[in-house]
Amino acid sequence: MVYINGQYLDDENALLNVTDMSLQRSYAVFDFFRTINGLPLFLNDHLDRFYASAAEMFLPVAIKREALKQVIHTMILQDGRPEIGIRITLTGGLSPDGYQPATPNLIIQSKPVVVASEANYAKSIRVLSRQHQRELPHIKTINYLMAVWLQPWLLAMGADDVLYCNNGLVTETPRSNVFMVTTDNKLITPNQNMLRGVTRKNVLQMAAQIMPVEERDISLEELSGAAEIFISSTTKRIMPVVALDGKLIGNGKPGQVTDQLYNLFRQLETESLNQVIQ
Amino acid sequence: MVYINGQYLDDENALLNVTDMSLQRSYAVFDFFRTINGLPLFLNDHLDRFYASAAEMFLPVAIKREALKQVIHTMILQDGRPEIGIRITLTGGLSPDGYQPATPNLIIQSKPVVVASEANYAKSIRVLSRQHQRELPHIKTINYLMAVWLQPWLLAMGADDVLYCNNGLVTETPRSNVFMVTTDNKLITPNQNMLRGVTRKNVLQMAAQIMPVEERDISLEELSGAAEIFISSTTKRIMPVVALDGKLIGNGKPGQVTDQLYNLFRQLETESLNQVIQ
Repeated sequence: MVYINGQYLDDENALLNVTDMSLQRSYAVFDFFRTINGLPLFLNDHLDRFYASAAEMFLPVAIKREALKQVIHTMILQDGRPEIGIRITLTGGLSPDGYQPATPNLIIQSKPVVVASEANYAKSIRVLSRQHQRELPHIKTINYLMAVWLQPWLLAMGADDVLYCNNGLVTETPRSNVFMVTTDNKLITPNQNMLRGVTRKNVLQMAAQIMPVEERDISLEELSGAAEIFISSTTKRIMPVVALDGKLIGNGKPGQVTDQLYNLFRQLETESLNQVIQ
Repeated sequence: MVYINGQYLDDENALLNVTDMSLQRSYAVFDFFRTINGLPLFLNDHLDRFYASAAEMFLPVAIKREALKQVIHTMILQDGRPEIGIRITLTGGLSPDGYQPATPNLIIQSKPVVVASEANYAKSIRVLSRQHQRELPHIKTINYLMAVWLQPWLLAMGADDVLYCNNGLVTETPRSNVFMVTTDNKLITPNQNMLRGVTRKNVLQMAAQIMPVEERDISLEELSGAAEIFISSTTKRIMPVVALDGKLIGNGKPGQVTDQLYNLFRQLETESLNQVIQ
């Protein structure tokens, strides 16, 4: 189901005019969260970021936070499936000249979501580093041009994901944040030139209860010598990285600290579920 | 009027499903040309680039070149206005998972076009430099995120356009190529990290008849000492740049060489008009 500017529509009727600034100039922001048992996960964090992204892009959001929650509540009920993904997109609107933003269009989609399984976790992922700095990285825009463009390359290289680096410093993967566990058992994650993930935030808070945590620059070289590496995202939760540029990390299997954080995160998920309307 | 995948539609009925990869991940390419007296300008150059952009993005174009020309011919006739802009967009299609490209959607829009007037030429433009490298700069993608995002800044600064630089080397403005005339009367334009404009190509060919022409790196410092600067694009033709980062270029008025090239280009335009279907 799709909500567009106040109307609830079937997927096939969820249409937007081609003069929209998303299609004309890729000018739009979004956010994405999932539900468990019909309850949204980390909803307030996602709404905080959505409104912040809109403001950073000079796009007014016509709907207030509580009314937006009501729409989300309605969509989850109407959809009926207990585990779905909800994407909220705000575009630059229908531009008369195809360059100046106009009145934003608000689009909310509910759709099936594929979440990493225990088997995916056990299999873990292999990543390749690549020099690339996303534009406006702190804003969750729709720009995944490079990420989608790199997919044939990743497939050809037999890798699962690309790790972006900016002048030798690790930043993020296209849809996840990256973490390393040092040999002396600290958790470290980059703190600039990347998107501040909601899962990242919650992993950091959670991990700080059990180990030292640092947000700071990480060079590719330092990462390569990590005891453990993992990435975090809404659909991957915590996903071990067992090879970087062809070099095995640790013994090539998920590490002990990653296992521990993963188990804690699964508990946190369950504890964090709130009714949308309270 | 808008053509979408074989159908000719009124503007208000030109709709695309929100699962299109353009809206989901800004994955799409386009090209844009204009007509004079109902005849397209530099059509073959634009079609060359359109098919090249599509191939670089791994997007198959279902329609062959001659059939595409027939559609363009029909659209120009149906539109009826002698001077219009035609935009051809090819998107990543309706993606089931919002990340993998699917069957591309082809969208062709005819719309009013505002071309720089003699008065605009005389007024000329003032530009500000800024460090920014576009992703995949050789492909004409829909990504103008940074350009649109910078508009409030340009307005606040009283500048007309931004000049992107990559580590001290000049590349392009968001929608134009940049040229300098040296004090010893050479024409120079960058040759990497930018889009190869159709107007750029035709200006270079034309200028080579009357003066030395070089395609090579230009530092911001070198540009700042230019005798004359101009930018080129489909809607601006040749547009003098009379101030760079607040410093006047030449005497702050369009230069003699720029005037000469502009006049030659206006002639070239008239001579270059061809019937779409020959």
